[in-house]
Amino acid sequence: MVPRYDRALIVGSGSGLSASLARLFAAEGLRVGLAARDVGKLAGLAAETGAVLQACDASRPAAVEALFARVEPALGGHPDVVVYNASGRLRGAVADLDPEAVREALLVSAYGGFLVAQAAARRMLPARHGALLFTGASASVKGFAGSAPFAMGKFGLRGLAESLSRELQPQGIHVAHVVIDGAIRNPARGPEPADAPDSTLDPDAIARTYLDLLRQDRSAWTSEVALRPWVERF
Amino acid sequence: MVPRYDRALIVGSGSGLSASLARLFAAEGLRVGLAARDVGKLAGLAAETGAVLQACDASRPAAVEALFARVEPALGGHPDVVVYNASGRLRGAVADLDPEAVREALLVSAYGGFLVAQAAARRMLPARHGALLFTGASASVKGFAGSAPFAMGKFGLRGLAESLSRELQPQGIHVAHVVIDGAIRNPARGPEPADAPDSTLDPDAIARTYLDLLRQDRSAWTSEVALRPWVERF
Amino acid sequence: MVPRYDRALIVGSGSGLSASLARLFAAEGLRVGLAARDVGKLAGLAAETGAVLQACDASRPAAVEALFARVEPALGGHPDVVVYNASGRLRGAVADLDPEAVREALLVSAYGGFLVAQAAARRMLPARHGALLFTGASASVKGFAGSAPFAMGKFGLRGLAESLSRELQPQGIHVAHVVIDGAIRNPARGPEPADAPDSTLDPDAIARTYLDLLRQDRSAWTSEVALRPWVERF
Amino acid sequence: MVPRYDRALIVGSGSGLSASLARLFAAEGLRVGLAARDVGKLAGLAAETGAVLQACDASRPAAVEALFARVEPALGGHPDVVVYNASGRLRGAVADLDPEAVREALLVSAYGGFLVAQAAARRMLPARHGALLFTGASASVKGFAGSAPFAMGKFGLRGLAESLSRELQPQGIHVAHVVIDGAIRNPARGPEPADAPDSTLDPDAIARTYLDLLRQDRSAWTSEVALRPWVERF
Repeated sequence: MVPRYDRALIVGSGSGLSASLARLFAAEGLRVGLAARDVGKLAGLAAETGAVLQACDASRPAAVEALFARVEPALGGHPDVVVYNASGRLRGAVADLDPEAVREALLVSAYGGFLVAQAAARRMLPARHGALLFTGASASVKGFAGSAPFAMGKFGLRGLAESLSRELQPQGIHVAHVVIDGAIRNPARGPEPADAPDSTLDPDAIARTYLDLLRQDRSAWTSEVALRPWVERF
Repeated sequence: MVPRYDRALIVGSGSGLSASLARLFAAEGLRVGLAARDVGKLAGLAAETGAVLQACDASRPAAVEALFARVEPALGGHPDVVVYNASGRLRGAVADLDPEAVREALLVSAYGGFLVAQAAARRMLPARHGALLFTGASASVKGFAGSAPFAMGKFGLRGLAESLSRELQPQGIHVAHVVIDGAIRNPARGPEPADAPDSTLDPDAIARTYLDLLRQDRSAWTSEVALRPWVERF
Repeated sequence: MVPRYDRALIVGSGSGLSASLARLFAAEGLRVGLAARDVGKLAGLAAETGAVLQACDASRPAAVEALFARVEPALGGHPDVVVYNASGRLRGAVADLDPEAVREALLVSAYGGFLVAQAAARRMLPARHGALLFTGASASVKGFAGSAPFAMGKFGLRGLAESLSRELQPQGIHVAHVVIDGAIRNPARGPEPADAPDSTLDPDAIARTYLDLLRQDRSAWTSEVALRPWVERF
Repeated sequence: MVPRYDRALIVGSGSGLSASLARLFAAEGLRVGLAARDVGKLAGLAAETGAVLQACDASRPAAVEALFARVEPALGGHPDVVVYNASGRLRGAVADLDPEAVREALLVSAYGGFLVAQAAARRMLPARHGALLFTGASASVKGFAGSAPFAMGKFGLRGLAESLSRELQPQGIHVAHVVIDGAIRNPARGPEPADAPDSTLDPDAIARTYLDLLRQDRSAWTSEVALRPWVERF
């Protein structure tokens, strides 16, 4: 049985990936909500896709509850697809890092994922239907030098996703963690080098894999998938 | 850039998965070849899908060369999608196993994968285009008690796939390993239990994920994906 | 070259493992410091081992700084072995968890590890000498159902350890993560079942492996090791 | 309970690691047997350590049986420690490899490990006592480009070890896989660079970790451990 999804909420919007997801989900007929700390920059995307916008600091419990309370009427029901896309990408030598900034990064990368997943699961469980998608990075599976806070947060998010996968899938909620193992293409940073075409991940291509996951039959669900450019060393 | 594939060869046919792959690939417009030790049982599938049949013991170099030599004209060119599906599923307490049978199991599970990948890669490399898909199992990533030969073979195949992924992807050949983490549905063994729907993997659903891999943009390729039923303990 | 260590600080004391570590380190001639939220229960151990006691909430930056400032004169120098043993072991269905308790658990399990590692590394780096040992659990490498907060925290600590291993080892600081994959023996909970001897981890045996790590030649350091009882299913 | 071992058989001797193991085991009071395809080069080591020498092609069942039959009287009993150290380190672009050489490499790296483990386990099981140690490499856990046969063989050996660990440990036989993640020091290839001391693994240091494994209490056994130089990028 392939589940059918109707309403998607993307948390941590602003990046190219969130825009690609919003466009693809809208094109597939889903109603879309977008949440970010700063939604001002998302007005154009909202106009284009019909998406509902909502400001939210995902690392604060009250803010996450308010987010779900507000998007539900706007989407015509609670979201049955929730994507957690936010992260705190803090780097530096361990001796030099500011402890407060490290805590903030950990709370955004991992704890925010918990809060959003909890709010989503509470709404999805009664109908035993829904999907939770977590966006990972190379740092989710490999702890790089000079990147302790990001590794701590992204490993943590992966542990959360794996635990929720085991807990929620038998209750009908698909949980998947997508490892983006490379740099996402960003035209604002200039074109790709001519001698290395497709050496950065096209966000539309990533979004396509998120959609593939949503279309999987529940007899053959994927809980984790990694994506990387064909030429990427790994 | 999403590659476009035209001719698929499925090695190790006979299982439900190979039949589902043959049907789906044919429906998507690919010409299909099927290879197995015993192709007698595949006549109906060939008639249904227009697939070319070829007997082959994939653990013998000469047989694999002959396979590629024979299917190429029948398919109108060398296959640009090759699926390695064969394995030697031998179990038993380590003290009781027959060493000859263990060697055969290892050669079918791992060495046959190498031979087929080599024959395929030699033909794909000049055009820098193609896809190699390896079928794994739970035993590819976890060595179970009483299953030493199967674990040895399937871990070995996974190592092969991972190495070829790093070697061949920058040359335009997508290499992916699919971990089937559960039992594949087989109506011949009776229906699924009524209280556990979709508790075995539908082979048509698995095949759909193979097709998803073939449709990935090369900027965001997947090298490994696991599939398991929603209710599977893992 | 095998480094030589003189002063150990064990953070998160109180468990059987911390006591075993304190006894073994003291017997090997190291001066020992013990830190825990509640040090009252450690008086006997301190008397037995000569260990310095210091109360500390490891998830608070100021408390961790104060800990290092106070133990340094008592130990006759900064600790060149630091063990992070604290964790927030919170379990429950995701829908039922208290968000505040989840945050606390994450901060103790992961963020406290960062704070202690940072304070230790700042002191160890000038001499390019030291060892950081992190205590992991089954939940560090497998996300169990009903254990989202513990998985999030322990995966996070593992990501931290792996990143610090890559960052600090080339600067002379050995970083290792020890996965305790089973239950630690606790006589207070009664004897082991007679038909399953050694089915729980003897904390003295675990401590012995920590010591083995400290005695490794730097040409062959281990960054992660798992320990489990001989009869453990895994 | 810490097992006590008396007789060690090292298969795949000749490398620096085997010599270090033979010396350390002999110094610890074990009787030692050394097996290799070519034992001529081992005469000096045998004289030094009192080790029994036996020629053996570990990928042939009859040869492995003959090995155990011959060393048993010479050691005063069957070996209760068996180390599998042989491997087929074949590299090259996949299109260029000789299929016969690939088969040989796979049989030496993985199948030989099975044969030796089976012969050892049959002798160890009646007393529910013994240890099997497998020597892995970086290629055991990462498939490098241009190294398909070595990855296939070493992944396969790791799968074997993991399966045997689950099968044999509850029967009293410790099974461990040691990942040597770097180059082993070899004075014959010249000294280490002066600006990178201890950048290659000292075989005596590796041997020390094998001995640490043999001295673990069975309540806290390790099934896999990786070793790498402090300055190694990984």
